[in-house]
Amino acid sequence: MPMMPVTDSVFLLGESREHPLHVGGLQLFELPDGAGQEYVGGLHRELLTHSVAGLFRRRLRGPIGSLGQWAWADDDRLDLEYHLRLSALPAPGRVRELLELVSRLHGSLLDRHRPLWESHLVEGLQGNRFAVYTKVHHALLDGVSALRMLQRSLSTDPAERGMRPPWAPRPGQTGSSTSPAHRLATVAHAVRDLAGMGPVMVKYVNQVFREQSATLPFEAPKTMFNVPITGARRFAAQGWPLERVRAIGAATGTTVNDVVLAMCAGALRQYLLELGALPDKPLVAAVPISLRGDRDGAGGTGGNAVGLILATLATDLAEPAERLRAIAASTRRGKAFYQGMSPLQITALSAIPLAPLAVALLPGAVRIAPPAFNVLISNVPGPRAPLYWNGARMQGLYPVSVPYEGQALNITATSYAGSLEFGLTGCRRSVPHLQRLLTHLDTALGALEKQVLTP
Amino acid sequence: MPMMPVTDSVFLLGESREHPLHVGGLQLFELPDGAGQEYVGGLHRELLTHSVAGLFRRRLRGPIGSLGQWAWADDDRLDLEYHLRLSALPAPGRVRELLELVSRLHGSLLDRHRPLWESHLVEGLQGNRFAVYTKVHHALLDGVSALRMLQRSLSTDPAERGMRPPWAPRPGQTGSSTSPAHRLATVAHAVRDLAGMGPVMVKYVNQVFREQSATLPFEAPKTMFNVPITGARRFAAQGWPLERVRAIGAATGTTVNDVVLAMCAGALRQYLLELGALPDKPLVAAVPISLRGDRDGAGGTGGNAVGLILATLATDLAEPAERLRAIAASTRRGKAFYQGMSPLQITALSAIPLAPLAVALLPGAVRIAPPAFNVLISNVPGPRAPLYWNGARMQGLYPVSVPYEGQALNITATSYAGSLEFGLTGCRRSVPHLQRLLTHLDTALGALEKQVLTP
Repeated sequence: MPMMPVTDSVFLLGESREHPLHVGGLQLFELPDGAGQEYVGGLHRELLTHSVAGLFRRRLRGPIGSLGQWAWADDDRLDLEYHLRLSALPAPGRVRELLELVSRLHGSLLDRHRPLWESHLVEGLQGNRFAVYTKVHHALLDGVSALRMLQRSLSTDPAERGMRPPWAPRPGQTGSSTSPAHRLATVAHAVRDLAGMGPVMVKYVNQVFREQSATLPFEAPKTMFNVPITGARRFAAQGWPLERVRAIGAATGTTVNDVVLAMCAGALRQYLLELGALPDKPLVAAVPISLRGDRDGAGGTGGNAVGLILATLATDLAEPAERLRAIAASTRRGKAFYQGMSPLQITALSAIPLAPLAVALLPGAVRIAPPAFNVLISNVPGPRAPLYWNGARMQGLYPVSVPYEGQALNITATSYAGSLEFGLTGCRRSVPHLQRLLTHLDTALGALEKQVLTP
Repeated sequence: MPMMPVTDSVFLLGESREHPLHVGGLQLFELPDGAGQEYVGGLHRELLTHSVAGLFRRRLRGPIGSLGQWAWADDDRLDLEYHLRLSALPAPGRVRELLELVSRLHGSLLDRHRPLWESHLVEGLQGNRFAVYTKVHHALLDGVSALRMLQRSLSTDPAERGMRPPWAPRPGQTGSSTSPAHRLATVAHAVRDLAGMGPVMVKYVNQVFREQSATLPFEAPKTMFNVPITGARRFAAQGWPLERVRAIGAATGTTVNDVVLAMCAGALRQYLLELGALPDKPLVAAVPISLRGDRDGAGGTGGNAVGLILATLATDLAEPAERLRAIAASTRRGKAFYQGMSPLQITALSAIPLAPLAVALLPGAVRIAPPAFNVLISNVPGPRAPLYWNGARMQGLYPVSVPYEGQALNITATSYAGSLEFGLTGCRRSVPHLQRLLTHLDTALGALEKQVLTP
């Protein structure tokens, strides 16, 4: 019986009804030529015929011992129909109805008696499409790994058939349920390591964080996002052409990531203004960032050295172009902070501003105030070429992430086939009218174009 | 701030992911003449315009103090869109897809940050129909009260329009969220009272129960239903003409309730035989029963004096008619046990066999073995006349009940407009292929007819 590392157990200990710790992904597919909505039910039946391997068979045993440590066991009573579900959208089957359904599904807890994943095929989507929403517990897989796993089950060849679902055994794979999960070196892991060290670590973290804060020219204000959260979720998603974002970067000498932050800054400013909740001081974003040149367009966390920087969102400035300049200067300073460090040092230091999230997961841990940042904005590079699932073209791929206690909103973007896809996940109570942020993102992009591209 | 009685708090203390303590109801409606499936979305929008009153605004505050007692508060941030949801069935939209959806919805926990209810309008059902699934926490309302509340919001007049949803304030109602809930005197309340008295009561219960057991000629065997349960649910439902059941009763001198038990007995025997899990000793059912003559056809728990009897299901007998005779003799003995007692004494004694369920809810309470009974079978009288909701005829009304630790299957029947409607609720893991019981119920009814009605 393989024991789970204490660093993963923390994601089980810290979970509550208010605080489900699973990550998700929403995929949109075009129906293959000539297929109708009945295609989705057929696909569901076909997928149920595959056997289940590896991670997807693992269920929890425990907690064991006074430390509350869990172990993994193979589920010999695996019930695939429980995990792979068929759902439908009410009329008119717009993206709006889809987002409502995903919000509900993302807000409910996974059943700990079973392997910690669910996948939902969704029929009834307008525009000759269907959707797949998948959720996986954070103790099993982090968000980036989950997105990669979804991608690996797809093909760049539209003619390929007979493709297996992500949970089926693959040729050459051991198929053993006890083999360690493939882990990507992401900031999330450093957070786990810190969290696993418990309250002793909190003192150290506080100390180092004060040192890092001293090098930053700003401090995060308290906002409506930095509050205790409830269990229900709101999810919104939309994509914009990567080319539009790149053109703004090229005209201003900023990165794709800077422009993404400027879009978020403009959207958050407008959202908070409308609710009469914009603080005087500018919002601070925590941003995972590649430190090996991120002007290649895919942005974000590619490469080996991933640092977490705190960047101003300059929401005190009314001019979009001015905000973009302030943000770009801030991310440059953030990257300079890591100059000359080893990847390990970078990872360790990057985890520090996230530590309050991890600490909040520890039962009985003291909460740290004020917030180190107001919102977590990630930009995860995705596949460049269009991908297919047994001939069905994937049209969109949106991350569905985890709000934390004190961090009620998460914005994660990913690039896919020339599009920049935003997934916004928030606490339903603390982030009302979340979908308005999509309109505001669109407005912010247009306003930037108008200011910097018109001669 | 009104405190909740300790006897209600036990339903919150005892709740866990494995053990959601909410009751539900499934209603099927015919679409009004000329209406299409878009009617359901319109109804959803219309219902969202009503305000919310009374019980439906109550949310929890607490737990307060070392006893873990909860209080009720008015939810001043009530979010009706969260509680009233629009869903759709995947194609082909049969009852099978509906039961799958209800199983999922019934297996998830209500959000304790909000008033403890959800109502789901379901479109996409075959046969020009739509469905409503409603769930309410047991701490707010018991199952019988919840069914009555659903009924009260309907009309016998197909021409009536402008009807309010159950949660809207009614003329003449105080509308105060702090007024005590309307409580029906049911066995469930006695269970609460016992549960509230805690472990001290357990000793007394054991003693009295041994005395009652001594008067019974049988003892319940251990079956696959008397095991720890998981959180996921299976639900199945179907109706049969009450006339068919009455005809068997008339031909054999037995009650409607006896014939309901005989149908269940035949179905459970066949189900357990197929799984190689039929015990040698006959199964024992716990049955709430009216003690003021229940040959009026509506069966069960009507009137003021409701007793709980333990009845054999005679599953050791192969002949359906012989089983029915054994069951009827057993229920007569059960009723005789209560002869000459006051309603209060009846209620108190009736609660005793249920005490293990209540005790199982108490954290740290000792489990009592062997099971006092194998399955709880209730027959709740419902409305005789067809009911309408703003012109939409209610076609069926099925109770969705609560499996308990050690009691993985619940069968509840209710009569409505000439039909006897069965709702079967089970733990998804412990009661596989639950829907087969519907086929077996149908077979059992047919077999009884063949034996006792053909000359």
